[in-house]
Amino acid sequence: MGLFTKDIKTMNDLFVHQLKDIYYAEKRIVGALPKMIEKASAGELRQGFEHHLEETKVHVQRLEQVFQMHGVEPDTTKCPAIDGIIDEADEVAGDVDDKSVLDAALIAAAQAVEHYEITRYGSLIAWAKQLGRSDCADVLQQTLEEEKATDQKLTGLAESRVNRAAA
Amino acid sequence: MGLFTKDIKTMNDLFVHQLKDIYYAEKRIVGALPKMIEKASAGELRQGFEHHLEETKVHVQRLEQVFQMHGVEPDTTKCPAIDGIIDEADEVAGDVDDKSVLDAALIAAAQAVEHYEITRYGSLIAWAKQLGRSDCADVLQQTLEEEKATDQKLTGLAESRVNRAAA
Repeated sequence: MGLFTKDIKTMNDLFVHQLKDIYYAEKRIVGALPKMIEKASAGELRQGFEHHLEETKVHVQRLEQVFQMHGVEPDTTKCPAIDGIIDEADEVAGDVDDKSVLDAALIAAAQAVEHYEITRYGSLIAWAKQLGRSDCADVLQQTLEEEKATDQKLTGLAESRVNRAAA
Repeated sequence: MGLFTKDIKTMNDLFVHQLKDIYYAEKRIVGALPKMIEKASAGELRQGFEHHLEETKVHVQRLEQVFQMHGVEPDTTKCPAIDGIIDEADEVAGDVDDKSVLDAALIAAAQAVEHYEITRYGSLIAWAKQLGRSDCADVLQQTLEEEKATDQKLTGLAESRVNRAAA
């Protein structure tokens, strides 16, 4: 974490720090998704996670591109927020026996991850624009759109479960 | 946390556990907001936080209502996800000297909190419907709408900062 430490004096410091935070987060997600794929029962959910793993690898590369564009060495900073969220997602590799309940928990865990990313990319894009770096904002916007699309797909899966239960 | 422990066997277990998670979260937010109000410089941001503190107290009461409707004693469960997110927000009471940078950081921290709540209430509403508890879903939906409105107001504040910087 250290988001609000004495190292942060300017908007540029805040922007670079948040880049490091989300770079750490994306790398943790690349590590967490294979376990979630393994545990998912519904084919559509498993395929969704597989697709998102490939997307997430691209998100890591895009962040490296933004670091480079901004003249900063790519680096991570540890953040308990994403650690907590991903630990929950990770623990889905745990002890819920009922496959349908496990899928519901996996969808919720993945949506918590997506929402964390959506809010962080949203801030990063606003700050990039404020710093006059619309070139960086454009790259980050591509990822934001993909995160939002993933969240919407997960909402669709959750709603179709509700509809099946009601049928 | 313990979201995915052996205690969770059914959709009902998952629903009740998540209620306890967000009940813990709302209470932590009630504790965190006064410090954020104190640190905010822009009048609009401070007033926004003050308004949201009053709303959050109502969210706590609504959760107690849902527990009661569902025949469960209100209880919390510790969750490292919200702890991590709120610790970041809380640390804003920290060491950023520049008031404008501090406000930017406060807006981002508050949006991370809102997005956590939006995703958790979204899951709870889906699960309540799946369990045939549309009465509980309706109460939770009221809070979700308020969390979304707060997030949108924060986005508006972030964007007006960007526009001012560009002007």
